Amino acid sequence: MTTVITKKQVMESLSHVNDPELHRSLTDLKMVREVKVQDGMVEVTIALTVPNCPMKAKIENDVRAAVRALPGVSDVSISMVSMTDEERKVVLGEPKEGSAAPYNHVKHVVAVMSGKGGVGKSLVTGLLASGLERQGFQVGVLDADITGPSIPMLFGMSGMPEPGPVGIRPLESDTGIKVMSMNFLLERDDRAVIWRGPLIGRAITQLWGDVMWGDLDYLLVDLPPGTSDASLTTMQSLPVQGIIMVTTPQGLASMIVRKAVNMAQALKTPIVGVVENMAYFTCPDTGKKHLIFGESHTREVAEAAGAPIIARLPINPEVAALCDAGRIEIVQLPEVQSLLDGFLQAVPISQ
Amino acid sequence: MTTVITKKQVMESLSHVNDPELHRSLTDLKMVREVKVQDGMVEVTIALTVPNCPMKAKIENDVRAAVRALPGVSDVSISMVSMTDEERKVVLGEPKEGSAAPYNHVKHVVAVMSGKGGVGKSLVTGLLASGLERQGFQVGVLDADITGPSIPMLFGMSGMPEPGPVGIRPLESDTGIKVMSMNFLLERDDRAVIWRGPLIGRAITQLWGDVMWGDLDYLLVDLPPGTSDASLTTMQSLPVQGIIMVTTPQGLASMIVRKAVNMAQALKTPIVGVVENMAYFTCPDTGKKHLIFGESHTREVAEAAGAPIIARLPINPEVAALCDAGRIEIVQLPEVQSLLDGFLQAVPISQ
Repeated sequence: MTTVITKKQVMESLSHVNDPELHRSLTDLKMVREVKVQDGMVEVTIALTVPNCPMKAKIENDVRAAVRALPGVSDVSISMVSMTDEERKVVLGEPKEGSAAPYNHVKHVVAVMSGKGGVGKSLVTGLLASGLERQGFQVGVLDADITGPSIPMLFGMSGMPEPGPVGIRPLESDTGIKVMSMNFLLERDDRAVIWRGPLIGRAITQLWGDVMWGDLDYLLVDLPPGTSDASLTTMQSLPVQGIIMVTTPQGLASMIVRKAVNMAQALKTPIVGVVENMAYFTCPDTGKKHLIFGESHTREVAEAAGAPIIARLPINPEVAALCDAGRIEIVQLPEVQSLLDGFLQAVPISQ
Repeated sequence: MTTVITKKQVMESLSHVNDPELHRSLTDLKMVREVKVQDGMVEVTIALTVPNCPMKAKIENDVRAAVRALPGVSDVSISMVSMTDEERKVVLGEPKEGSAAPYNHVKHVVAVMSGKGGVGKSLVTGLLASGLERQGFQVGVLDADITGPSIPMLFGMSGMPEPGPVGIRPLESDTGIKVMSMNFLLERDDRAVIWRGPLIGRAITQLWGDVMWGDLDYLLVDLPPGTSDASLTTMQSLPVQGIIMVTTPQGLASMIVRKAVNMAQALKTPIVGVVENMAYFTCPDTGKKHLIFGESHTREVAEAAGAPIIARLPINPEVAALCDAGRIEIVQLPEVQSLLDGFLQAVPISQ
């Protein structure tokens, strides 16, 4: 005696399959467009929320597995189509600001800050992101430097982000780090963004709330120099858990970095670690260390911040060359291990 | 027969003596409070517009010379008092925004820009200002980096600016450069200015219009990183004649500096010269030049800017140490001469 499969059984089984990004069932999302059953043969048509959905293969596999698990199913055939904009609006509503945010699950948001420009905030962000990814964490980088974004070049990334069902999708680096930067949205990477502060602040909240970050262990926010709109909006509007403060040895840098420390304290955002970049240059001919930016004033920064110095990074021409070549993910420096260990001690992963 | 001197004659002679800052006569400014004549003895009481007027000695000398020139005057005695706020308001009106501006005579306003942080804009500004002052020009520096000001530390300057009759007075460096920076107005140099863009823009217009710059050949405006409020307000609200664009060799810096080039072009402010900083490091042991920030991409910046490269400055630990010690005015580098020559060729002094 053969088990007779009904459409209802198929629909019921698909009500347990979730869209991996929206975390709602395919039936709830009205993604199951058609089900045909003939003997043990089941044909299912799935309407993706957006064309070119990067989750297409996963959804197809999940649907197949769910239907196959029904007793009596001998074969499953799946067709994929896409919803129109109108159909998507019926299911998800009109797109509105921050619409991706409810679907994102970010365990730890950590900002990389300095106050001073050109000290290597983006380098530290990139090294941390790469190291965390190598250790198996899911990592994102939000480039909050709207007018002077460095992150895309360090990772060798370009291209226009795709729209997702809610908000836009971040790009992915070679090793799978999710990255979003204003520079992805410009037609040329050297176009200026000539915006006043309110627009800068708004752009940052959009890079947070309108981007499909999905599930992340760590989202690193690379801040621009200064203690104005970008830093203020990031600390006030994003759930920043801690700040990594980057400085260089010079007293001049230290004075300005202490302004950033002062701002973080005023806004009650804890500083969890201090990184000194450009600490020294080792002459390749003599092996001698040269303090080319003078004696270190980083202790003063750490004391003001009430946070440990978690790493001192040297000036390294090979690292500069790899960064220019978009290959920060393959940088190997012994000092990076200390940076990573210090970071993970400062912001241990929550379960 | 003795010539009899009248009060009227004295007043008439003082109507040709000008306040050196306000460029109006002492009688017009109601600064001549009292005149007593007894035989050849003349007593004059002058009311300064503000107490502690730095022009006090000059005004006294000018008054003495003018009165002495009258035939029959054997002696002149001068007393100095100060106007009350009320009296000053009667003469100069209520203080209002930009009130110092009409009294300033600045021949050339030149902005030092980069887009990128930490490339040495302030160093270039400071070296240029010091070199121009040494050549006998009257020079001012407006530090437009409100949240990360470097200029005061480079010049070793601090202290609260004094109020003048209109607006506030800039501080003067050891060699006589007039300097104004947000940091002079803070109680501590590491306090953060946590302001959104509109306030940043307003602060810059005040540093221009409410400061008694007086007569200057060159006012250098040290811009912060970015292409947002500070740069926008400076280019839109100040009579910037040209821009010196500062970059470092790295491709990453070059890409961001080209954004600043793009902004200057969009706002039709000419770029008059490009400076490469941190071009190389000469090992003191071997004399070998190390390109520690990689091969230069400055040519690309100069081509985009349509401006010549006027100098390439090395990384020099002694310069860094002098800057930290507030002694930029005594920096001696052969490359600075090329910087100065290039600057004066780009912005020749008008007669």
